[in-house]
Amino acid sequence: MHKSKLAGFIIDCQTADLQAAAKFWSRALGMEVRQLPGEEGDKYVRLMDAQHGLHVEVQSVSHPSRVHLDIETDDVEAEVARLEGLGAKEVERVQTWCVMEAPTGQRFCVVRKSAANFDAIANRWPAPG
Amino acid sequence: MHKSKLAGFIIDCQTADLQAAAKFWSRALGMEVRQLPGEEGDKYVRLMDAQHGLHVEVQSVSHPSRVHLDIETDDVEAEVARLEGLGAKEVERVQTWCVMEAPTGQRFCVVRKSAANFDAIANRWPAPG
Repeated sequence: MHKSKLAGFIIDCQTADLQAAAKFWSRALGMEVRQLPGEEGDKYVRLMDAQHGLHVEVQSVSHPSRVHLDIETDDVEAEVARLEGLGAKEVERVQTWCVMEAPTGQRFCVVRKSAANFDAIANRWPAPG
Repeated sequence: MHKSKLAGFIIDCQTADLQAAAKFWSRALGMEVRQLPGEEGDKYVRLMDAQHGLHVEVQSVSHPSRVHLDIETDDVEAEVARLEGLGAKEVERVQTWCVMEAPTGQRFCVVRKSAANFDAIANRWPAPG
């Protein structure tokens, strides 16, 4: 048995000015900006979603701007296998997460659990077989 | 004074098989499918987000697949004006909502409020001037 749920979304922005992008989305969504430490902070700005408890970040990217979803899990390998069973494809591994592509074409990421209430509210998936 | 907040997101799928698309995303996210009545149901399937209270739908579209955010509000005109002030541009009006484009390039929609707890948790924006 492993668990997963929607973690939130990443607002991918094709821009050299990450702070301006984060400022727009922070004000548009009414979510406070939190700067991240070290090199992470050069690429990502977190937006604090007090209303829904989602993990939301603005990311500076080189590809065209988009929004992508993240799925959080207590077992990345089991979750990637489950999603492959539904028709998704693994695209690449980055640090601790896995980039996947849905059968409908959207990219999304499988990431390690981070929500404080993850264990209480995540979906439970029985082991295959 | 008017109010707004993130409503949720729409998973736009370039597909003629809306039900297959909804089935994948329902299982991937662990959110139950709810069929919508009438013509709405030909284009949209709702996914019930019991965990975060978001409004999530899978939509059949003719453009390339993507994910777009929705912002819900008690005053569409005031919210569109507020977002224009932040640098967003109006793209088109569809039924009761407004399609906008962020300065970072992503399309998003401003829609009428629908969350049950909207009034309690939405951001409050003072009237300009």
